[in-house]
Amino acid sequence: MMMEQKTEVALPDIQKDNLPKTTRSAVLNKVFDISLEQTPLPAMKPTDVLVKIVAVGICGSDVHYYDTGHIGDFVVKKPLILGHESSGIVVATGDDVQNLKRGDRVAIEPGVPCGHCSYCRSGRYNLCPNMQFMATPPVNGDLSELIVYPQDFLFPIPDDMSYEIATLNEPFSVSIHAAQLLGIKPGSSVFISGGGPVGLLAILAARTFGAHQIIVSDTQDLRLQTAKKMGADRVINALKEDPRKVIAEMTNGEGVDFVLEASGNPKAEQAALRTLKRGGKLAYIGVPTTDAVPLDIPFMTDHETQVFGIFRYANTYPLGLEILEKHMGLAENLLTDFYPLSQTKDALEKTRTDKGESLKVVIYPNEQLRHN
Amino acid sequence: MMMEQKTEVALPDIQKDNLPKTTRSAVLNKVFDISLEQTPLPAMKPTDVLVKIVAVGICGSDVHYYDTGHIGDFVVKKPLILGHESSGIVVATGDDVQNLKRGDRVAIEPGVPCGHCSYCRSGRYNLCPNMQFMATPPVNGDLSELIVYPQDFLFPIPDDMSYEIATLNEPFSVSIHAAQLLGIKPGSSVFISGGGPVGLLAILAARTFGAHQIIVSDTQDLRLQTAKKMGADRVINALKEDPRKVIAEMTNGEGVDFVLEASGNPKAEQAALRTLKRGGKLAYIGVPTTDAVPLDIPFMTDHETQVFGIFRYANTYPLGLEILEKHMGLAENLLTDFYPLSQTKDALEKTRTDKGESLKVVIYPNEQLRHN
Amino acid sequence: MMMEQKTEVALPDIQKDNLPKTTRSAVLNKVFDISLEQTPLPAMKPTDVLVKIVAVGICGSDVHYYDTGHIGDFVVKKPLILGHESSGIVVATGDDVQNLKRGDRVAIEPGVPCGHCSYCRSGRYNLCPNMQFMATPPVNGDLSELIVYPQDFLFPIPDDMSYEIATLNEPFSVSIHAAQLLGIKPGSSVFISGGGPVGLLAILAARTFGAHQIIVSDTQDLRLQTAKKMGADRVINALKEDPRKVIAEMTNGEGVDFVLEASGNPKAEQAALRTLKRGGKLAYIGVPTTDAVPLDIPFMTDHETQVFGIFRYANTYPLGLEILEKHMGLAENLLTDFYPLSQTKDALEKTRTDKGESLKVVIYPNEQLRHN
Amino acid sequence: MMMEQKTEVALPDIQKDNLPKTTRSAVLNKVFDISLEQTPLPAMKPTDVLVKIVAVGICGSDVHYYDTGHIGDFVVKKPLILGHESSGIVVATGDDVQNLKRGDRVAIEPGVPCGHCSYCRSGRYNLCPNMQFMATPPVNGDLSELIVYPQDFLFPIPDDMSYEIATLNEPFSVSIHAAQLLGIKPGSSVFISGGGPVGLLAILAARTFGAHQIIVSDTQDLRLQTAKKMGADRVINALKEDPRKVIAEMTNGEGVDFVLEASGNPKAEQAALRTLKRGGKLAYIGVPTTDAVPLDIPFMTDHETQVFGIFRYANTYPLGLEILEKHMGLAENLLTDFYPLSQTKDALEKTRTDKGESLKVVIYPNEQLRHN
Repeated sequence: MMMEQKTEVALPDIQKDNLPKTTRSAVLNKVFDISLEQTPLPAMKPTDVLVKIVAVGICGSDVHYYDTGHIGDFVVKKPLILGHESSGIVVATGDDVQNLKRGDRVAIEPGVPCGHCSYCRSGRYNLCPNMQFMATPPVNGDLSELIVYPQDFLFPIPDDMSYEIATLNEPFSVSIHAAQLLGIKPGSSVFISGGGPVGLLAILAARTFGAHQIIVSDTQDLRLQTAKKMGADRVINALKEDPRKVIAEMTNGEGVDFVLEASGNPKAEQAALRTLKRGGKLAYIGVPTTDAVPLDIPFMTDHETQVFGIFRYANTYPLGLEILEKHMGLAENLLTDFYPLSQTKDALEKTRTDKGESLKVVIYPNEQLRHN
Repeated sequence: MMMEQKTEVALPDIQKDNLPKTTRSAVLNKVFDISLEQTPLPAMKPTDVLVKIVAVGICGSDVHYYDTGHIGDFVVKKPLILGHESSGIVVATGDDVQNLKRGDRVAIEPGVPCGHCSYCRSGRYNLCPNMQFMATPPVNGDLSELIVYPQDFLFPIPDDMSYEIATLNEPFSVSIHAAQLLGIKPGSSVFISGGGPVGLLAILAARTFGAHQIIVSDTQDLRLQTAKKMGADRVINALKEDPRKVIAEMTNGEGVDFVLEASGNPKAEQAALRTLKRGGKLAYIGVPTTDAVPLDIPFMTDHETQVFGIFRYANTYPLGLEILEKHMGLAENLLTDFYPLSQTKDALEKTRTDKGESLKVVIYPNEQLRHN
Repeated sequence: MMMEQKTEVALPDIQKDNLPKTTRSAVLNKVFDISLEQTPLPAMKPTDVLVKIVAVGICGSDVHYYDTGHIGDFVVKKPLILGHESSGIVVATGDDVQNLKRGDRVAIEPGVPCGHCSYCRSGRYNLCPNMQFMATPPVNGDLSELIVYPQDFLFPIPDDMSYEIATLNEPFSVSIHAAQLLGIKPGSSVFISGGGPVGLLAILAARTFGAHQIIVSDTQDLRLQTAKKMGADRVINALKEDPRKVIAEMTNGEGVDFVLEASGNPKAEQAALRTLKRGGKLAYIGVPTTDAVPLDIPFMTDHETQVFGIFRYANTYPLGLEILEKHMGLAENLLTDFYPLSQTKDALEKTRTDKGESLKVVIYPNEQLRHN
Repeated sequence: MMMEQKTEVALPDIQKDNLPKTTRSAVLNKVFDISLEQTPLPAMKPTDVLVKIVAVGICGSDVHYYDTGHIGDFVVKKPLILGHESSGIVVATGDDVQNLKRGDRVAIEPGVPCGHCSYCRSGRYNLCPNMQFMATPPVNGDLSELIVYPQDFLFPIPDDMSYEIATLNEPFSVSIHAAQLLGIKPGSSVFISGGGPVGLLAILAARTFGAHQIIVSDTQDLRLQTAKKMGADRVINALKEDPRKVIAEMTNGEGVDFVLEASGNPKAEQAALRTLKRGGKLAYIGVPTTDAVPLDIPFMTDHETQVFGIFRYANTYPLGLEILEKHMGLAENLLTDFYPLSQTKDALEKTRTDKGESLKVVIYPNEQLRHN
């Protein structure tokens, strides 16, 4: 059970002038092989910030690199630090850093775009071809005691928000971005296919954008119960009921306005399309597990369906934190498992082998657990 | 060769009070079986108009009903009049008709929505579940000498536009609608996959919406030559070159902003996706010939691709006619074959068995050909 | 105090075949001259519905016709029935009416567009030049016992919603429409200038569209207290504080994302502009009382401000009722004064001479008050 | 008369290591006082480029600082180099510059945003509060022989485009930005109020975005004749005809879809509003000359008008150059007067005292005129 109060995190006596050359990190050497190593800590630039990492959530992609060594074209060719859903505390700041100071608690947006390409200049920096995104080979993640990071991608956490909830802002950002692109709005009906952490946080996004009817499907009871707690109007155990049939009944045979496909499961990716009403829109927000999925183009044409691939997010961090602050009690439901850095392998195995007892696993790179 | 001047069409001496009970039509009785029949002419309502049909273009869907008897769930169960790309001349008008008068030349929008459902009220009447669309079973088309039609879906043709070009406004409307939904705009690069009439007219749509680079692929020389004439910057014979490779070379490996897939061919539907740049959008504007096509969801996610099914059009008729008027010389290139109503079966066979010599086949329900 | 439970409304024994020729109405004969009259009841068309009017809210425009005889170019030249914020119960239905039946409780959308012009077909029917809008000369309103009305503009009221709250859907629709046009979204800051009924309902709209910061100004305490109850984060008594200064302080000198100007007061219309941040948007949702207001164009240019005139609404009725149903307790706060039809003049005088004790005045055309 | 061929511009033998400390510039010391001075040339950063300035167009704002010393809150408190519509040739590049090399011909986007604020990150960098915009006190312009400039805001000029036409991309960008924000699209009708250089270039923007009807008003014959050449369908001499009346006649009393107000004249700013149809949109793209202009809010409300302030532009430079390349012959019409740097005061006076013989005045900071 989570302790509600905010625990003070000790600040190490490090400044930018006495910066250590290395820090302790959990490194994926090769498939299934994790070790703790001293890894290099880069010099700080004037716009950089030194952050002590407090909490890191484990993402499906971390597990994927751990047990297969690649995702699509991204292959782990040399040792890689995993982790990219994180929060921490500012230890020191570069000379040109104005908005942050030692002791500030921050959420860390894990992708740093180039800032110069046409995507960056026009506001879609998630598509920047020069993006440096944590824990995506060959870019290291932050399962580390300390990181040096550019100020622009560090966001102050509200005082009453735990570090753990702040880490949820990363997966939450995906559904905020999707809700914005799709145009979810007051009165919308939304089907969320898949009730893992991304799908569960998508409930909050759908609510926040005004959805009046939220339906969630999954095959695991814990997820469906949590979905209910998070505000789903109806949950569907896909082992027992056909989502398409249930949704048809709930919508006078019309279907829903929006689908957020969060399972990444090929069957679900295919089936979700047919729960849409005419003119409806679907977004793939999960990590797809197969290359090609047969999609029903005549249905898409006849229904004038719009299907969106969603790639991470842009400009969502401040809004995500604002929304999470309003729903901290709900978000708490997602945090189920807690490990120190020294048990990173156990944490990854916990997620990998989960049979429905776990939602989000959190690792503490500085060992000090806030949970039990 | 088309005669450039407008030929006067004789007006029959019919008024709304001496309306004949029947008219002569080309009827599809069953697969491959076409006959000329006297079919019922309904009574005119005060907002109806009696139109003498001058020209009707043959669409792929007409041929599909002719040689297979169905498209998806739409099945020809009783004799059906084909034809829905048409123009004509006003013979008589109901008492409440104000904007049209006897002798007016009109293009005929072939779908009449209910006007009352939520789709109709919000401007997306193409999705109206109560739509009456010509030559879609069980609704008859207008390969007929006369039709009775609601005034709201008849649009005056510019004086200098031929009836034949006016019929092109129907397939043209699909690409206008797609260009609007996709947001094609000045500077865009557009790949049009498939150079049949729909794809060729899509060149005009892409140009009109400001595309600076238009690439067209097909496998037939006549289509590619016509694409070039219509304004394609580059044509690709897909038998000789790989569109994806050519497009990558032309765009510094980035891909195009927009794809209009007009072939309906499963291989092309699948391949077209990968010609898109990050953040690009694809619309299916052809009639899909297969149910499920394997689409590359990891590509869609990684590229944040948007895929749109396009279903007909809404509110495009006036704009389409305005654009066609500016490009009548180009549009002329599409009109290749001309038949009187009595040779409807020959006209359908011409399209069905085309080996690359024909583009658009026109039928004249009142027998008087304007071409030779 | 409002009685919470729904009172049964008696259904008169009238069918479409024994329709009375007249009904009792409150008629504005000339300025300040109201009388009860038997006014003609038109014959029912097959798509019409006979409605017994239960409650009618009084709008500022009703008072304006009552005390000046005109609004802009609309002049009361012959006796006019006022009232257009209304709800009632279905007494009888035409032969083609399918979605409503005797006994159904309905909210009445007071404008009936032509359904045929380019505005209607493209979903912006509020701009229809042929609009028939109640209580706008020469079109009568519905301060009448009975009306005959087209089915398309009658919307079922949720079972647990009072007739009185249903009347609020009319002024509420204006702010829903504005929120949609402006694009108010999660995280937005919104300044609502003017806390009369329209401004107070705009608080609900801003909340529903996701605003995180809502600031309301007015000069009357009852309005500001009610604004607070409705969810305003900060209220400003403009007699005591300068809204622009307060807003600058609350927003680090940046200003708000959106302004909804609901007062119609020229000074406020002018001043509200300068509370916007760069790139902000303002909508005029009140009834403007003066022709020309000096607006600061250099500010608009430098801030890239967008200023929207809002004219009524389109396609908002179902959504408005859904939202009101979630906030019935709050909406209740607006209902302050209740009169039978026989006291229509008193009701209009109550609004006209209000010194800050009244919000929304409701009239009961069938005399049976639901309040005391 | 312009010489059509591209003249070779001599490249000085300067590298980043032998960079001179100063360059020759035209400096506004105080109102009406211009002198040639050696002004400091800053050191080059690795991402900077040294540009020899070839041509600089004179903008109304330059003249405004010259003859009044301020625009709104921007006041010339110390000597200021004017000029911000410019093009040049790359002399040397910093070590991190990859896309440009010595000898490249470039158009110079005169505003450099911070790249870090919320406006920059979301693609609206024109609203960046930290913007450094040339010739806006206290930021210097580029009426200088040489400037050091960040690579990100230099854009290669097509080979066949003159330096002079490239300078037009700056004022052209304003109307491109306005056309994008307003949503001008195929079939639109557009009224351009004011036929100075900004208004004349707006004709190109309106055409490019698909306008089918373009109407331009001014009071000077040269401007109206040039408007006609640029593609205006109708020009109005506002001294002889009332634009509102002409437009009403041309649009069946409905008004136009869009207005681009480019004159900055208060009367025109006020009058232009009433030329809009219902649902129309107006953008102020000229420099407003007065603070408060009385705008007709009841008209805006009744017509659901949208009024946009336009502030410079963002992400328009590549598109602007592409469009100008297609219309170089037309753009040539705007270039009427040519001065060497030593005659900067004459150039400013030419614009200031113009009685209708001049359109765009160009200054050559390196003295070598390309015109006669």
